[in-house]
Amino acid sequence: MVKVAILGFGVVGSGVAEVITGNGAGISKKADDLVELKYILDVRDFPDSPFAQNFVKDFAAIENDPEVNVVVETIGGVGAALDFTERALKAGKSVVSSNKELVATHGRRLLDLAAENNVVYLFEASVGGGIPILRPLSECMAANDILEICGIVNGTANYIFTRMVQDGIPFEEALRGAQANGYAEQNPTADVEGMDTCRKLCILSSIAFGWHLLPEQVPTTGITKITLADEAYAAACGMRIKLLGRAIAQEDGSVCPFVEPHFVSLQDPLGGVEDVFNAIKVKGDAVGDVMFYGRGAGKLPTASAVVADVIAAARKLTRAGYHPWQANRPDSVMPSDKLASRWYVRLAEGGLSAEEKLTIDQAVAGESGWITEAMTRPELNKMLEGKAVLSVIRVLD
Amino acid sequence: MVKVAILGFGVVGSGVAEVITGNGAGISKKADDLVELKYILDVRDFPDSPFAQNFVKDFAAIENDPEVNVVVETIGGVGAALDFTERALKAGKSVVSSNKELVATHGRRLLDLAAENNVVYLFEASVGGGIPILRPLSECMAANDILEICGIVNGTANYIFTRMVQDGIPFEEALRGAQANGYAEQNPTADVEGMDTCRKLCILSSIAFGWHLLPEQVPTTGITKITLADEAYAAACGMRIKLLGRAIAQEDGSVCPFVEPHFVSLQDPLGGVEDVFNAIKVKGDAVGDVMFYGRGAGKLPTASAVVADVIAAARKLTRAGYHPWQANRPDSVMPSDKLASRWYVRLAEGGLSAEEKLTIDQAVAGESGWITEAMTRPELNKMLEGKAVLSVIRVLD
Repeated sequence: MVKVAILGFGVVGSGVAEVITGNGAGISKKADDLVELKYILDVRDFPDSPFAQNFVKDFAAIENDPEVNVVVETIGGVGAALDFTERALKAGKSVVSSNKELVATHGRRLLDLAAENNVVYLFEASVGGGIPILRPLSECMAANDILEICGIVNGTANYIFTRMVQDGIPFEEALRGAQANGYAEQNPTADVEGMDTCRKLCILSSIAFGWHLLPEQVPTTGITKITLADEAYAAACGMRIKLLGRAIAQEDGSVCPFVEPHFVSLQDPLGGVEDVFNAIKVKGDAVGDVMFYGRGAGKLPTASAVVADVIAAARKLTRAGYHPWQANRPDSVMPSDKLASRWYVRLAEGGLSAEEKLTIDQAVAGESGWITEAMTRPELNKMLEGKAVLSVIRVLD
Repeated sequence: MVKVAILGFGVVGSGVAEVITGNGAGISKKADDLVELKYILDVRDFPDSPFAQNFVKDFAAIENDPEVNVVVETIGGVGAALDFTERALKAGKSVVSSNKELVATHGRRLLDLAAENNVVYLFEASVGGGIPILRPLSECMAANDILEICGIVNGTANYIFTRMVQDGIPFEEALRGAQANGYAEQNPTADVEGMDTCRKLCILSSIAFGWHLLPEQVPTTGITKITLADEAYAAACGMRIKLLGRAIAQEDGSVCPFVEPHFVSLQDPLGGVEDVFNAIKVKGDAVGDVMFYGRGAGKLPTASAVVADVIAAARKLTRAGYHPWQANRPDSVMPSDKLASRWYVRLAEGGLSAEEKLTIDQAVAGESGWITEAMTRPELNKMLEGKAVLSVIRVLD
């Protein structure tokens, strides 16, 4: 008998309760054991919830109940979530999480703590919602040296770009629409400033390259400055603007991680990823490019990823956790400034001697768009000295 | 210490030998144990191979060596491959396979045999080459009821279609080009007649729906009758022709499996899959559509999937095999004739009262292309009675 406690009854937590109870027979069969929801921890009251009898307000009730084998953490943040996760692991309970901030910041220590206590810490739902990515990356691609990760992992940002292009509305209006549709938080900072993408990139990179990449090591640029003119110039060269999290292995063993909006060709499978969909492209030395695609957020998709981890934890696959990753390497990060790329540049006036001049119908008088040859950011900055620069966006090649 | 024996030194088998020896340190680390190649079984001699000292000609040498824990079967077919797989499992050795014909035909019995002997039978490489699909489908989507599988799983067929469209050459010429490039066998029957897709669909369906679907239960149509005119009409309505393997869960609990060329919209992520790439779309009741994309064949991609399974087997994850599937259900297959779809129809003369008439520049005098409303195949046949029908292709909606 596997008894589950859910911490936090928000969107994901309530979805997990629904999936576990609604699909109980199938889940128990796959877990080779009866899986049952026992507790839900939340500070709020839910007297009308069908799970009303499961609610507790004190984590100690869960911590001290030896019947509870699996704890699902959907609180978010690094406060109570960290405290409860540590206590649950120390109490010999496996923990399943959708909390990307916690994993990106403290994942390695929590994985070690799980191993010490002979339980597992699993977090498939923290990246790409319901898309299977962490376990395939860790297990199915285990025979590869991973060369590169490149992903659209924030559905809110991608939805905003899609609305800008398809509806011809500016960023602010697209953001308000995303909020009205429940695709963006009332405080959208983590999504539009790139922090959410950064955290997910750290988790992917840690699994792929085997050492803990920390968010503060990742130069991160958000999408708030992207204009309709930029989108028009992208379309003019068969591209779309996408917020990408990238981490590229270098020959010297370092990794170059960064989060930036990019021009992405529609010939690239990432270029056609629209709306709230996510897609993560992984390049392995043996397998080449592999891509994982699907809805990266939402109550039931995310809950389904959490519950799959609950099933794995319930099967006591203590050796089926992710391949452990090592401590952070402060000296193994290559600054993205050193990565040569082609660049899109929009000028208020004047010109560039660049690879390609872009033409759009709706061009503002004097303005022009350009794609440069491949160069580093400092080289680009030198080229742009004294120019009236409106936009600079890296091109994915 | 994990000692590996490879059966068959063809393209995949030699790739496995290369990956295991070339990437040995990383593999051993991930396996938590030293992984070493001990034997290669092949009837041929390879005196100049770097693995010359590993070759044996008698399977008994492997079967009777208690040091061998993992046997890699890359022989193909259902003759010696079946015999050796059974004997290896009975001898308490885990077996890893890339042999889709064997799994599609005898998979269930071999999984049972593995379980009885407390070892695993893994075959990630049998579908989609190096693309992680079977383990994610089995484990990461375990909380979902799978509603539908729809995949481009034969790279040869997809390469032929891509060449026809991009180079404007007919089927036969594209096939010869595929053979010249090593993308098609000298006997391409299994690829172009759809049997290869059918076998892979059976494996996907068995894992997704939990009972063994057999190849003879899957109506299978190949691609040999597709013409450049059909491709032109597809392009005229923003579509491409793709050979799809589909299995759709029905409300009564049955499954509707079939392999047919389809008109696929370029708006669908499957529509843009070109060349030898594969893509498998899976719809779960909680997660919605998820897609897996990558190179579906080739020496190193396939070998990397085999070696990932070797690592899993080496970690003795005896409970980490696929969720077992049940016996075949002869009465649970819905004939694809009953599945209503829109249809593309090309007529030598005359017309249809259909949803849409297609226009192409290069139309032959008298010929016309049409997209019908959704209807079953018998309904379509009735509509086409007495007409001069040149082509009929199902539309993916």
